[in-house]
Amino acid sequence: MIPTKEIVLEAGKRVAPYVHRTPVLTSRLLDDISGARLYFKCENLQKMGAFKMRGAINAIMQLTEEERKVGVVTHSSGNFGQALALAANNLGVTAHIVMPSSAPAVKIEAVKAYGGKVVISEPTLKAREREANKIVKEMGAVFLHPSNDVNVIVGQGTAALELLEDYPNLDCIMTPVGGGGLIAGTALAAHYFGIECKVIGGEPFAVDDAYRSLKSGKIVDNTTTHTIADGLRTHLGDINFPIIQSLVSEIIRVDEEEIIEAMRLIWERMKIIIEPSSAVPFAAVLREKEQFKNKHIGIILSGGNVDLLKLSFFKR
Amino acid sequence: MIPTKEIVLEAGKRVAPYVHRTPVLTSRLLDDISGARLYFKCENLQKMGAFKMRGAINAIMQLTEEERKVGVVTHSSGNFGQALALAANNLGVTAHIVMPSSAPAVKIEAVKAYGGKVVISEPTLKAREREANKIVKEMGAVFLHPSNDVNVIVGQGTAALELLEDYPNLDCIMTPVGGGGLIAGTALAAHYFGIECKVIGGEPFAVDDAYRSLKSGKIVDNTTTHTIADGLRTHLGDINFPIIQSLVSEIIRVDEEEIIEAMRLIWERMKIIIEPSSAVPFAAVLREKEQFKNKHIGIILSGGNVDLLKLSFFKR
Repeated sequence: MIPTKEIVLEAGKRVAPYVHRTPVLTSRLLDDISGARLYFKCENLQKMGAFKMRGAINAIMQLTEEERKVGVVTHSSGNFGQALALAANNLGVTAHIVMPSSAPAVKIEAVKAYGGKVVISEPTLKAREREANKIVKEMGAVFLHPSNDVNVIVGQGTAALELLEDYPNLDCIMTPVGGGGLIAGTALAAHYFGIECKVIGGEPFAVDDAYRSLKSGKIVDNTTTHTIADGLRTHLGDINFPIIQSLVSEIIRVDEEEIIEAMRLIWERMKIIIEPSSAVPFAAVLREKEQFKNKHIGIILSGGNVDLLKLSFFKR
Repeated sequence: MIPTKEIVLEAGKRVAPYVHRTPVLTSRLLDDISGARLYFKCENLQKMGAFKMRGAINAIMQLTEEERKVGVVTHSSGNFGQALALAANNLGVTAHIVMPSSAPAVKIEAVKAYGGKVVISEPTLKAREREANKIVKEMGAVFLHPSNDVNVIVGQGTAALELLEDYPNLDCIMTPVGGGGLIAGTALAAHYFGIECKVIGGEPFAVDDAYRSLKSGKIVDNTTTHTIADGLRTHLGDINFPIIQSLVSEIIRVDEEEIIEAMRLIWERMKIIIEPSSAVPFAAVLREKEQFKNKHIGIILSGGNVDLLKLSFFKR
């Protein structure tokens, strides 16, 4: 069930021409504050502003010629919709993105700007799934899940693969946990290419489904969605969960204040824009300083898609 | 009068262990918008958040053992004060930073956090100079000017040196123009290590002293300081001006709206935080698109020190 070393390595080669090899940034100030040595893999600087580009590229490239002619479909109001639209565009494939009618106009415009065909659905998960299924049935398009698809998972892991190429001796790599694709892919990369390199997830208390899923041994859902880390409200899937169970050491939960403080430190000290979800693993390091003292820790900064018009600086 | 190739090369080796080799980022979206191929050298991701760290390190390292024992002094309310404090700290040298009583508390705290000894003066240039002179006379400390010092100038040029190592075929490198240290250093690097690589400055209309100085052939001052690009309000000096006259092709002026729009694009599309001054060269490219069409252009993003508490996102 668990993808092989070869599969992970192949994915790295496959996506490389289509993604930025994002820089790894370090900050002595944040090292001092945390007591650890931190290596930030900046997927916020990735094409379309998030690691999701990697999984989308990897998944589309595994399709047959015939499938690629027909196109792909997903439902997403977030980064994966944009990623699939752009990845498909780069590869000459049509992408249908089902988006809820409640999605902000700016996100719908972004998907269109990347060349995606937007289909608006009622704002429920059921309605989105129904609409996506309709496209699969009527047009023959291939459905790609944002996080519970083995090719997507392995593609997301290529960020960690690059990080370990640059810094082979990391004690640990940390990611946020949303749908589970990023942490599962990261865990695969660390398992095959790290040297006793643990993988630890960060998750808001408000949406701690992954924490509770690992404890209980079965996938559970969130009961609330009240977190600033809006990318992490989704739950795990049956393909990524077994990988997470096998290869992820631990999930650390953080509260909302901790997320905001971690985000502020990264914006202010590192001069990069990250979305709230991306601040969660660093918040976890700050919460559990003793555990990480003097350790070399890779942190995947997952994305940077923030609506800057909500910041007063750019108010018009 | 113009520093030699050897001097520029030596500076690159000298500062390397003390500065980040900052990443060069590209963005297809910004290429599409501008019609040019842009290579952004991210000095906003430099230690203390600005290129000024380079000049400060280079200047201090050229001092004699005796001078280093006594210490250095500058007057600055901006990035150079912080840079000199941090550079001195890294090299085990005492730095006295004269700051006007009108300086924001956050900037004074930053200098102190980097280990600088802050001396508060009346908020006039005369008073600042007087206070700095006093420290030179009474303590024997060496005065280092933020931009009109040959070692500082050559140090600032090491950003362009790295950029040209990575991308040797640039048609042009652009920088903002404030005190003239960055553009003069950049022009030296491009002159010796570029292949017919022009250097072009960007300057706000509101503080276009460098533009007028080049036109008139002598250093003139600004009559107003009404620009969002607060790092560019200073004027050129007698050491950097001859270098600029010899080696800089042109200075392009931009208005305030253009600066804000350029800054917004960089924040939004590249996910990095730059200060308004850093947006000026990109604003110049957007203003004069025809001139830069299909050209390969390096842009030095000079710094990222913005008061984020002024953005509503982090309001407490």
